[in-house]
Amino acid sequence: MNAIAQNDIPALMADIGRRAKAAAAELAQAPTEAKNAALLAAARALRDQANAIQEANAIDMAAGAQKGLSKALLDRLMLDPGRIEAMARGLEDVAALPDPVGTVLARWDRPNGLEISRVRVPLGVIGVIYESRPNVTADAGALCLKAGNAAILRGGSESFHSSGAIMEALARGLTEAGITPDALQRVPTRDRAAVGEMLTMTDTIDVIVPRGGKSLIARVTNDSKVPLFKHLDGICHTYVDAGADPDMARRIVVNAKMRRTGICGATETVLVDSAVAASHLPGILDDLIAAGCEVRGDTETAALDNRVVPATEEDWGTEYLDAIVSVKVVDGVIDAIDHIARHGSQHTEAIITNDAQAAETFLNRVDSAILLHNASTQFADGGEFGMGAEIGISTGKLHARGPVGVEQLTSFKYQVRGTGQCRP
Amino acid sequence: MNAIAQNDIPALMADIGRRAKAAAAELAQAPTEAKNAALLAAARALRDQANAIQEANAIDMAAGAQKGLSKALLDRLMLDPGRIEAMARGLEDVAALPDPVGTVLARWDRPNGLEISRVRVPLGVIGVIYESRPNVTADAGALCLKAGNAAILRGGSESFHSSGAIMEALARGLTEAGITPDALQRVPTRDRAAVGEMLTMTDTIDVIVPRGGKSLIARVTNDSKVPLFKHLDGICHTYVDAGADPDMARRIVVNAKMRRTGICGATETVLVDSAVAASHLPGILDDLIAAGCEVRGDTETAALDNRVVPATEEDWGTEYLDAIVSVKVVDGVIDAIDHIARHGSQHTEAIITNDAQAAETFLNRVDSAILLHNASTQFADGGEFGMGAEIGISTGKLHARGPVGVEQLTSFKYQVRGTGQCRP
Repeated sequence: MNAIAQNDIPALMADIGRRAKAAAAELAQAPTEAKNAALLAAARALRDQANAIQEANAIDMAAGAQKGLSKALLDRLMLDPGRIEAMARGLEDVAALPDPVGTVLARWDRPNGLEISRVRVPLGVIGVIYESRPNVTADAGALCLKAGNAAILRGGSESFHSSGAIMEALARGLTEAGITPDALQRVPTRDRAAVGEMLTMTDTIDVIVPRGGKSLIARVTNDSKVPLFKHLDGICHTYVDAGADPDMARRIVVNAKMRRTGICGATETVLVDSAVAASHLPGILDDLIAAGCEVRGDTETAALDNRVVPATEEDWGTEYLDAIVSVKVVDGVIDAIDHIARHGSQHTEAIITNDAQAAETFLNRVDSAILLHNASTQFADGGEFGMGAEIGISTGKLHARGPVGVEQLTSFKYQVRGTGQCRP
Repeated sequence: MNAIAQNDIPALMADIGRRAKAAAAELAQAPTEAKNAALLAAARALRDQANAIQEANAIDMAAGAQKGLSKALLDRLMLDPGRIEAMARGLEDVAALPDPVGTVLARWDRPNGLEISRVRVPLGVIGVIYESRPNVTADAGALCLKAGNAAILRGGSESFHSSGAIMEALARGLTEAGITPDALQRVPTRDRAAVGEMLTMTDTIDVIVPRGGKSLIARVTNDSKVPLFKHLDGICHTYVDAGADPDMARRIVVNAKMRRTGICGATETVLVDSAVAASHLPGILDDLIAAGCEVRGDTETAALDNRVVPATEEDWGTEYLDAIVSVKVVDGVIDAIDHIARHGSQHTEAIITNDAQAAETFLNRVDSAILLHNASTQFADGGEFGMGAEIGISTGKLHARGPVGVEQLTSFKYQVRGTGQCRP
């Protein structure tokens, strides 16, 4: 790579792609112990090099402040000893997960004596394109590695030095454990052309996981020739059915919206059955407003509470990621399902009801990755599902849907064992 | 649709997409019995309308002959009573398959009491782009329907009238069974712009299955914004290991190459371990040549038999789909695996050996959809795998790999049942 000019982006990326593909072939055969040893050594290296990582982060933070990044963005960018320790523990957690590679997913015999097995294998090379959080470098890299994949990581330019320092620690860990550092590579330039190049590398990248805001996702979706695990909006709904227990509805709605407003599983729209709007909705509005939430409601909701701001048509399709919620009165579960089909993003929706039939209708008919009955949409999370860490929540329907953990970062192949069979 | 001019391709295709999406929502909830009734009624309609279908086919055949289509293409295009009956039986076979929709793929409980199920659901809308075989209209349509999907079918222009007549029969069957005929729609124009339009319909088409020759696949792969189930070349290898039984090797190689040369699972390259080249290869060459196969060999192979034509570098990457085979002497299983990694297409490869360790090395290390031990590559087929009919063999690693049957035409969602859980 030393021979390639850092500004010759196509040559640079082609070289990274070739190295990743070779590393993926090696990793596909790596025993679980070697992958785990690499993850644990990388965790140790992160701790050992915590000072260097913080120094690199200070450069990014100073540049970010000078550039006028928002307080929220600067907070995402910041690395302190606690966050570095959390990254190291994250690597250890991934090491502790079961290795999905080699699992026999199904096995059956054919009348002609052929024995067919479907066996889990790594996907190959995974590209990850993300924004300012430097910890994604370690978190996403670890998940790809555990599933036997090579990763090409492309973080936001604001976190360039931080990600570079983290990557140096990861590379040291890999090398210590005898795994090629090409298994986890970072794009070593801030030039945005590198992203455009990645999106065309169909010969060397098997799938790209974009993580970030709408404009990043839109650009990647529009330009990519490489398949994507789509992570679109989380316009999540909580529907309070006629059969809902009013106290449970209050607790779940406030949790679903306000526990953390910035995550993709946060509820953005509350739908309330007209049969219980008068009885259940005032308490829900009280709780939301008391928790500091702005409520934008339709006419019927606004009529119940003068603190409610009138909602516009745009509100029904908005992912606020903030202490704002839209509220609408609907005519029963079918009307709620129709509203979600029109305005939702196929991410996560919940129904609150003690009516089992309404619940099953909702769980079966709504076309989203995750449907919940009598639980908060904030459970839309790989950890909460028991999958360990996740690289994101996929709203696409191909391959990975919902939380994308190590298992979702694998493929499979068929192994057929015979005794000389020819096809008649 | 009557209001849309047939030459306004974008409007025409957008209308088809909208109808398909609405039909998919209806089909996702359709009971198994309704889908099966529609398939059986469509089979009856194909038989009832066999004369009309043959008349339509005669128009295509006459136009094809005038256009100078090859004998092979005209044969693919031709429909006689036997082929129409085979299509009808194909629909009945698909009706007899188990319905994949609604199957609980996994179910587990969380410590907080949440009960999580992963449940199979349809993919949504599937686009199928194919070439001259008109039976694909019925075969692919039936598989999509059984898995609860709507399909948009775009056949080759040579089979335009034949496909249209088949589609009329299918539509009659659907209507009889009370399922919207929008569940299976055909692109009602020969204008190639319709294909370009399909490839951009990310809002209404969930996945496109291209079936056809290299130039079709290349165009679709290059232009599509919609995800694809890739069906690339089948450059399949049979490797005769040092541990191979010579008689078994002869039988399997001839079957793998010559049983049917035009299918994607036909072996195109035979690799022979140098340790047994002198002992095993002459008999294999005899059998291939006696069966009418042209053999293109490397220097070592050519030295064994003067009927062998020297192979060029291009031969190792060629899918002949004909009575031609390339043969190369390699240095053991690792060298065979390396050759396949360089020249193969990740479709199907076989090893012939009685050495269990060599077999496991081959089955684990080769990165192809299907690996066989002591069996013919011609078993690469959904029916032979016990999956019933297939829409093709996917060489991609995402979602569907290997034979694509009804199960591979589905997605899944998570249903989470709680008792009022909020996330702490």
